[in-house]
Amino acid sequence: MDSKFIVIEGLEGAGKTTARNCVVEVLRQHGIQDVIFTREPGGTPLAETLRVLIKQGIEGEQVTDKAELLMLYAARVQLVDTVIKPALARGAWVIGDRHDLSSQAYQGGGRGIDQQLMMTLRDTVLGDFTPDLTLYLDVTPEIGLNRARARGALDRIEQESLNFFVRTRQRYLELAVADSRIKIIDATKNIEQVTLSLVRVLEQWLREQA
Amino acid sequence: MDSKFIVIEGLEGAGKTTARNCVVEVLRQHGIQDVIFTREPGGTPLAETLRVLIKQGIEGEQVTDKAELLMLYAARVQLVDTVIKPALARGAWVIGDRHDLSSQAYQGGGRGIDQQLMMTLRDTVLGDFTPDLTLYLDVTPEIGLNRARARGALDRIEQESLNFFVRTRQRYLELAVADSRIKIIDATKNIEQVTLSLVRVLEQWLREQA
Repeated sequence: MDSKFIVIEGLEGAGKTTARNCVVEVLRQHGIQDVIFTREPGGTPLAETLRVLIKQGIEGEQVTDKAELLMLYAARVQLVDTVIKPALARGAWVIGDRHDLSSQAYQGGGRGIDQQLMMTLRDTVLGDFTPDLTLYLDVTPEIGLNRARARGALDRIEQESLNFFVRTRQRYLELAVADSRIKIIDATKNIEQVTLSLVRVLEQWLREQA
Repeated sequence: MDSKFIVIEGLEGAGKTTARNCVVEVLRQHGIQDVIFTREPGGTPLAETLRVLIKQGIEGEQVTDKAELLMLYAARVQLVDTVIKPALARGAWVIGDRHDLSSQAYQGGGRGIDQQLMMTLRDTVLGDFTPDLTLYLDVTPEIGLNRARARGALDRIEQESLNFFVRTRQRYLELAVADSRIKIIDATKNIEQVTLSLVRVLEQWLREQA
């Protein structure tokens, strides 16, 4: 099977890290060993520097929505062109903790940036590069934020209002329903049930690719 | 007269700082006292942080052309929305050391990023916001780089090949010829002659605005 780019998406506290470990285990059972991980924003020294700017902001300055979005895309294109595409080209599988769908959901849905602008920017910057499979872990903002809070301090984006996350989840769901490469996993259940759903979806998808 | 956004453009060593001082003096003689300065990339804490990333790059990592371009636009939209537009709205004049034309010339011309992509990005990010007047100081790369070298160490972009600057100047000239709001000043001459040309162009433009 050709190497693939699999992305795990979802609100804070959706269980992305657990899901990632689970995906790696399933791939291993299928004999796929050459796997790299990425996270967004981040994954290269430049992109990690931008991640800090995006997550922490700048003391005494309100970062505009467009500036945030453009920094996200700067980090993303750097990661795609210098890490993800070369890895796929040499035959490695790439598992991404977030990718473009996060921007569509958080900046497009949550912040309300014009959807046409979002699509134009994505097409302009990324062309037709897109994940082979996206596993979207769907939780309500209440559940997700409670889990995130239990982990520790919230960053600039995690401190947004509940309505922000309601809009973000809404956009995630709209886009997932419209794209067969995005699978919705009910992540409100307990960890065993979520893992079971994830494995079932991934195994099914792997069979279809073979 | 309504407040205006005047931009000074040109290659390294074209004489932008001298030109800026000259513009301020002419405006003062016309009774225009409320003037602010911006430089790009930069002019806000976030944009200045991005400026350092753009100018110095990251140790051991090649910044891709698109990532550079997106960081430039992140810095630009932050400056336009939080500094330039509010200043113009309260009646201040804004004098910019570089603005969008620099990206068109350096990234579009110099780096060879697709012009359609450049235009789409600009329109998407900035809409129809554009300087009222741009004074483009035209020098050959040889003259400009000699002057810049005399000033001290060159940064990441200033260290580009001569051909890069030849393409950058070419794009500057193409765009200037096509837009009546961009005035070309011959900046290869000595400082007195350049100043005289600049004053003549600016006075003429101010008369037209009155």
